[in-house]
Amino acid sequence: QSLYEKLGKTNRTVDSELEGQIETLRDTQRKYGNILRLARALTSHFYHVVQTQSSLGECFSDLAHKSPELQEEFLYNAETQRNLTKNGQHLLAALNFFVSSINTIVNKTMEDSITTVKQYEVSRVEYDAYRSDLDYYREAPKTEVNQMKLGETESSFNAKKTEFEKLRSDVQIKLKFLDENRVKVMQKQLLLFHNAVSAYFSGNQTALEATMKQFAIKVKSPNSQPPSWMQQ
Amino acid sequence: QSLYEKLGKTNRTVDSELEGQIETLRDTQRKYGNILRLARALTSHFYHVVQTQSSLGECFSDLAHKSPELQEEFLYNAETQRNLTKNGQHLLAALNFFVSSINTIVNKTMEDSITTVKQYEVSRVEYDAYRSDLDYYREAPKTEVNQMKLGETESSFNAKKTEFEKLRSDVQIKLKFLDENRVKVMQKQLLLFHNAVSAYFSGNQTALEATMKQFAIKVKSPNSQPPSWMQQ
Repeated sequence: QSLYEKLGKTNRTVDSELEGQIETLRDTQRKYGNILRLARALTSHFYHVVQTQSSLGECFSDLAHKSPELQEEFLYNAETQRNLTKNGQHLLAALNFFVSSINTIVNKTMEDSITTVKQYEVSRVEYDAYRSDLDYYREAPKTEVNQMKLGETESSFNAKKTEFEKLRSDVQIKLKFLDENRVKVMQKQLLLFHNAVSAYFSGNQTALEATMKQFAIKVKSPNSQPPSWMQQ
Repeated sequence: QSLYEKLGKTNRTVDSELEGQIETLRDTQRKYGNILRLARALTSHFYHVVQTQSSLGECFSDLAHKSPELQEEFLYNAETQRNLTKNGQHLLAALNFFVSSINTIVNKTMEDSITTVKQYEVSRVEYDAYRSDLDYYREAPKTEVNQMKLGETESSFNAKKTEFEKLRSDVQIKLKFLDENRVKVMQKQLLLFHNAVSAYFSGNQTALEATMKQFAIKVKSPNSQPPSWMQQ
């Protein structure tokens, strides 16, 4: 059936509204996958920045004790790097939360709908195949064999039609809920991302901590391992 | 002579004040080498953060145009990432300037003094070797051969002594100027580093630009290549 469709030798059932929605879903998954990739890269690079700031803080602190001639200079630099390391842990926790939420929506929620879409698409091809057969036997000479075949095909067609319509309705429902869920999740996550990033890069530790609290994000200890997905 | 010294079978000329200064120089070179290594790592990781922020800004901006339902959320995030990218270029220029200055002091200025120190140390061993020979011939039975050898050794010893004292004085002068220079350079660089980092991480773009101006640092275009030393 797929082959005949590609050759243009048969006609297919088209639900252009639904197919448009499916195309949009695939496109959105691709685009959000791109956000996910970049957010992971940002988290990974930023993780290394914070680790280096921590080492630099220790290095400056050590030199402050051992260099009376530059004590003041090393001290204020050690202090700054220490503060940045501490605040950096907070931003890292927020970035990890963002990455984890986007990963769920792209690779779990959207992927689940895509799986149903694929089942629907397979079912649509089978449904159209039975429909073609049915047309064939209806227009064929009314021999006994053909009449028997027509009966068999009709019952197969009806069973497939029920399955196909069930799956179409499943897809329609899933897409509707997915879209509502997606907008809700993205609104929350994009707000978190913006507030955490803005607070951190404007040195507003109080605002950063308030954001963390608002989104119920826990900060890991400075020596915790990077997430397993992190690029090395 | 070195071997005899290690075996404790001869005595060596000791200038404990100068040797202490040399040990301090080597220690300082090691410690500043550590600052250099960490500053390079920080610059490299931060360079990748800025590159990712730039890509993320474009990604958000693209999505803002294509997602009316989340336009506002994508727009303010695009704006934030764009600003961070711009400010990040300024901090990168300051970090590169810091790295380049520390590299000069560790691998050029200090290394030049270390080379003179090495020449001085070789000369010291040779000088002590002639001194031992001289002691030997002075205490040896006064045969004609020994008297001749004594004369030869005396003249070699005096030539070596002149060279040795010249090199000792060179080292002393270099160490004194190096130390004055080092303190002056480090005061300036540590102030720059602190001011640039503090201004950037408190979102104070005006202060960051003022720091750049104060230290006459030029900002490269966003698409410029990373410095050749950068870790990939």
